[in-house]
Amino acid sequence: MDQRLSLLSIGVKSIAVARAFYVDGLGWNPTGPSGDTILFFQLPGFVFSITTHQHLAGDMTVSPSPAMFRQGSYRGFSLACNVHSRDEVMQTIVAAEDAGGVVLKHPTETDWGGYSGYFADPDGNAWEVAHAPGWVITPEGHTIMP
Amino acid sequence: MDQRLSLLSIGVKSIAVARAFYVDGLGWNPTGPSGDTILFFQLPGFVFSITTHQHLAGDMTVSPSPAMFRQGSYRGFSLACNVHSRDEVMQTIVAAEDAGGVVLKHPTETDWGGYSGYFADPDGNAWEVAHAPGWVITPEGHTIMP
Repeated sequence: MDQRLSLLSIGVKSIAVARAFYVDGLGWNPTGPSGDTILFFQLPGFVFSITTHQHLAGDMTVSPSPAMFRQGSYRGFSLACNVHSRDEVMQTIVAAEDAGGVVLKHPTETDWGGYSGYFADPDGNAWEVAHAPGWVITPEGHTIMP
Repeated sequence: MDQRLSLLSIGVKSIAVARAFYVDGLGWNPTGPSGDTILFFQLPGFVFSITTHQHLAGDMTVSPSPAMFRQGSYRGFSLACNVHSRDEVMQTIVAAEDAGGVVLKHPTETDWGGYSGYFADPDGNAWEVAHAPGWVITPEGHTIMP
């Protein structure tokens, strides 16, 4: 798997509270399909998103439990690595499993038009591996949202 | 606060297990002062580190409890934003508090030669704001380790 982070997602209880803090408070500029359930921010080199605990846990098909130190449990955040094709999603998930990771969600079509799966590292940190049409991975490995 | 993430840290139970997965398994290349208690990886545009739950929680002066949904509790990860001076560390912490954040650790000298403090966003996600001599913030906002 390339040494790259494409998207960092964090879960929150309220998007309205998060928006008040990051957008109104800190002055960050949301981009892309930001709305009532998710906020996206184009950071230098990669994308940061804020979504609800419920949505984030649901996306990786785990329970939004606070038992974060148990393998397969919801941790309150996820990491994402975008790749160049659906085949590479599968290859990366397999490589991660071969390296000692645990598959949380086998690669599948997503409701945002992409293709992704999830694995957890040995400590239960969840990684999404995704092919996201329209998103650009530059030669430098920076991820740019459409 | 600039719209930037400079360092993403995740906590693990065992650095040896994490090294076996990320370095030996996935082929990532550690850099900087990586060792038995922490691993650093230069990712495109920013730095990713893996350290022990104990060290990470201790650094932000909170308890390594799994009660992650309580404000001020240990979440198993931290975010970091590097800035250009010690004054800017303080200004940023104050701005974050003004925006509704909670100060976890007032800015102070660090044992790695820098200066940093921590605040939590309204959901308890911890941010370190740091002045790290030797680390470069490029005009594009990319963070480069020495």
